[in-house]
Amino acid sequence: MSTADRAERVPKQDRSRATRRRLLEAAVACLAEHGWAGSTVSVVAERAGVSRGAAQHHFPTREDLFTAAVEYVAEERPTALRALFPEGAGADDRRAVIAALVDLYTGPLFRAALHLWVAASNEEQLRPRVTELESRVGRETHRIAVDLLGADESRPGVRETVQGLLDMARGLGLANLLTDDATRRDRVVRQWAALLDEALG
Amino acid sequence: MSTADRAERVPKQDRSRATRRRLLEAAVACLAEHGWAGSTVSVVAERAGVSRGAAQHHFPTREDLFTAAVEYVAEERPTALRALFPEGAGADDRRAVIAALVDLYTGPLFRAALHLWVAASNEEQLRPRVTELESRVGRETHRIAVDLLGADESRPGVRETVQGLLDMARGLGLANLLTDDATRRDRVVRQWAALLDEALG
Repeated sequence: MSTADRAERVPKQDRSRATRRRLLEAAVACLAEHGWAGSTVSVVAERAGVSRGAAQHHFPTREDLFTAAVEYVAEERPTALRALFPEGAGADDRRAVIAALVDLYTGPLFRAALHLWVAASNEEQLRPRVTELESRVGRETHRIAVDLLGADESRPGVRETVQGLLDMARGLGLANLLTDDATRRDRVVRQWAALLDEALG
Repeated sequence: MSTADRAERVPKQDRSRATRRRLLEAAVACLAEHGWAGSTVSVVAERAGVSRGAAQHHFPTREDLFTAAVEYVAEERPTALRALFPEGAGADDRRAVIAALVDLYTGPLFRAALHLWVAASNEEQLRPRVTELESRVGRETHRIAVDLLGADESRPGVRETVQGLLDMARGLGLANLLTDDATRRDRVVRQWAALLDEALG
């Protein structure tokens, strides 16, 4: 490949990556706002300002686009979480860490993931992919939680304590779906942060 | 009204009540299996062995039928829970009570309610009714939980401790949607039951 070819190729790859990213972000927003039934490749392409053909070049099927979208945003979460505690988190930060973990489940990503998740329970084409994605994201979230909480999983019960916290966070996310549940949630999080702080030692 | 009229009227009311109940039960099963998109009055009428006209006599709209169905099954839950602990529950029963509360969120009713809930987040016709239903069922579940756990809500933090438990139960229900999560769930419930037992004193 000549130097001139290479110079032309790099911006093309950049453009392609930028298009892909626009599609993924539009897909998450679309899923969060309109649910699975209202989310198609065409709707997302239009929202992203990309032609339908270009969208289908990147994502041949609807299932490809939306699972990739949830995966893309989910992959940003560990980085975002660690950025909140750039020096790592100490025992004093535990309540802040618990609040940050719960926040993962109240934004547009959780709404989008929830729609995909519920749709997958009735759609055979979606189910295996979402199951696999969900379990991968779940393991990664658990790993970050253990790390930021400074939880010692070699002690009996600690693993299940952290898992229960993430289950509670998921339930709080669900409770926030139809109404703004922030006031109640803050009180619950404060109380359970105190209980968990004690349990984690 | 003559005695003969009355004699004829009672069985008619009974038949009407039985038809209504068959429709409600079929509606919950349909919602749990096929989700909101696959759940219509016609599908439910056929499943219940009732004519479409009769179904529409009882429930004029799709929203009427499915919110009534989730409400109907939800109303049976307090009775079913109390029946598990006919003499009331003592401090020794706490772990069993917590397990029973969590079980509320893993059966077909929770799946049905979840589909309705998620659909309501994008459908304006459904949203206010489901929001109201959800908050009523939530308050009632909280009341039973406080009662069976023997939780003293006049003590600071106790209310939020119980709320967090129910949020965790909801999150565990969601985790059970795509895969059978029973083994992990049992371990989490055992550990959180121990934390709660200590917190409630």
